[in-house]
Amino acid sequence: MSLLSNSRPVIAVVGVGAVGGYYGAKLIRAGHDVHLLLRADYDAVRLNGLRVRSDPDGDFHLPPARLNVHRDPAACPKADLVLVCLKATGNAAYDPLVRPLLTDDTTILTLQNGLGNEDRLAELFGEERVAGGMAFVCIHRLAPGVIHHIDHGFLKIGEYVPVGRPPEGATPRMGRAAELFRSAGVACDVLDDLRRGRWEKLVWNIPFNGLGAALDLATDRVIGSEAGMALVAGLMREVIAVAAAEGVPLAADLVDRQVAHTATMGAYRSSMQVDRRRGRALEVDAILGEPLRRAQRLGVPTPFLEAVYHMVRLVDPAAGPAGSPQ
Amino acid sequence: MSLLSNSRPVIAVVGVGAVGGYYGAKLIRAGHDVHLLLRADYDAVRLNGLRVRSDPDGDFHLPPARLNVHRDPAACPKADLVLVCLKATGNAAYDPLVRPLLTDDTTILTLQNGLGNEDRLAELFGEERVAGGMAFVCIHRLAPGVIHHIDHGFLKIGEYVPVGRPPEGATPRMGRAAELFRSAGVACDVLDDLRRGRWEKLVWNIPFNGLGAALDLATDRVIGSEAGMALVAGLMREVIAVAAAEGVPLAADLVDRQVAHTATMGAYRSSMQVDRRRGRALEVDAILGEPLRRAQRLGVPTPFLEAVYHMVRLVDPAAGPAGSPQ
Repeated sequence: MSLLSNSRPVIAVVGVGAVGGYYGAKLIRAGHDVHLLLRADYDAVRLNGLRVRSDPDGDFHLPPARLNVHRDPAACPKADLVLVCLKATGNAAYDPLVRPLLTDDTTILTLQNGLGNEDRLAELFGEERVAGGMAFVCIHRLAPGVIHHIDHGFLKIGEYVPVGRPPEGATPRMGRAAELFRSAGVACDVLDDLRRGRWEKLVWNIPFNGLGAALDLATDRVIGSEAGMALVAGLMREVIAVAAAEGVPLAADLVDRQVAHTATMGAYRSSMQVDRRRGRALEVDAILGEPLRRAQRLGVPTPFLEAVYHMVRLVDPAAGPAGSPQ
Repeated sequence: MSLLSNSRPVIAVVGVGAVGGYYGAKLIRAGHDVHLLLRADYDAVRLNGLRVRSDPDGDFHLPPARLNVHRDPAACPKADLVLVCLKATGNAAYDPLVRPLLTDDTTILTLQNGLGNEDRLAELFGEERVAGGMAFVCIHRLAPGVIHHIDHGFLKIGEYVPVGRPPEGATPRMGRAAELFRSAGVACDVLDDLRRGRWEKLVWNIPFNGLGAALDLATDRVIGSEAGMALVAGLMREVIAVAAAEGVPLAADLVDRQVAHTATMGAYRSSMQVDRRRGRALEVDAILGEPLRRAQRLGVPTPFLEAVYHMVRLVDPAAGPAGSPQ
């Protein structure tokens, strides 16, 4: 069986934070065969179920009886589709969490932020299995199993292709995965070029997650002054230059479009700002570190990115000496 | 009369925050003829006097009867020595506050942070009057007229010489000013080259005030990780390059010495970090803006300085839209 041949494919969601909880809950509500793999939040979700508080779409609750929750991946059925929704800081757990779920035909779709996640999954499990997607959604995990959906929610997914090879285009299994999401009320586009999508999203994520975390400022404060716009535009131009050097030319008006889109978001706190405030590990390597390493390998000057990378590492609750006064 | 001819010179202290309050109080305690010019803190100091809580030297209190306090500079006697201790964000008040205090022979000594203060005073009042100094001291104003002295306290003062002219060396009036401070228990060196001193201090102020304010981190956190040291060393090297381009070569081991000195300070919050926390205007232009403008005029690349400059402007409570959520 596979994602294509199985009319009711088994979907495993690895990591049930904001992203895994939100999309997992939507798929479950639509009647799909979803299995949730949790660690820290296992007890709470098994006891209380999953709750989505959606500002635009209304709230819903899935009681425990409607959920298949697992702490041990070996107890989970083999999956046709594995949705990887871990924080990128938890990627060391790829092997123990994902490997037990795989058949020969399993598709692994990571919805994680940043660069390098697909590459690592491909190293571990074979590149033919791997796909990636970006979630364009304003969501926060309020508590274990409780997700606050503020706005948006669409996905863009696509096949993984390593750097240096031409994009593979939209495959039937990506079409099938997109269908599953659409059937759950989630808008989903299939990208013919995942790397372009990743870089386009980084053009947003790097300034707003980076500055949001470093300075503890929401998006409206960052774009609300000439100083903030100098940083945002400078960072975006650096990221666009790295993407171009990696063979992914982005549209010239991307900076303006991203800023205009950000202005519609109000006082939005990026996930990294929220994580800093909550004392949780920041996704610094996937969002800032890997793009910086690629820039350095390609010889593209990215001094603002480098400065922000160091700053975010400096404020990362996972890295700071515990209990040190600030 | 002048600073040199008057055996008991009239000293006016303009701005009685941490620096003005601390050095003013030391001079008063030593019996000098000191006049304090205050604005916001006038009532509190006239009522309660000046209090110095010194961790290394013990506390002392000067009751109102021992103080000459003025709100209106026209009511203050003409001064032989004007100590300018305003925050650099208040430099628009130079003319109304300082001009009424001047005779033909008055020496104006600014103890303010950063670059550009002497230049502005020279434009207004004539360069022959102007001198500058750096206070190497860990102090905070706890409340109006209440100064917490944490450590250090020595001064380095020197004659103002505009960019492009050779240093003037130690003059008799600088020697006299240093004597006054020493008689009050304040160690004071006379610099033969004030600009070198200013740039040396900026090598410290730019990373630790800049990063301290932007990231809300004390000095020990900034130097306590590889990420922080990459930023500190990068910023220091940029500042040293600008100084060199402006004709002020600094010692090659300055980065190491400054970092070693900082390590002795423990979890010190720079004045700019404290100001951000208290919601007060940041001295962003004197400490970061003017050095950056000079770098740009001289064609010296300073991308880290530029990034930190924009970030500090972005978090400056004086610039942020009031009441905007962070």
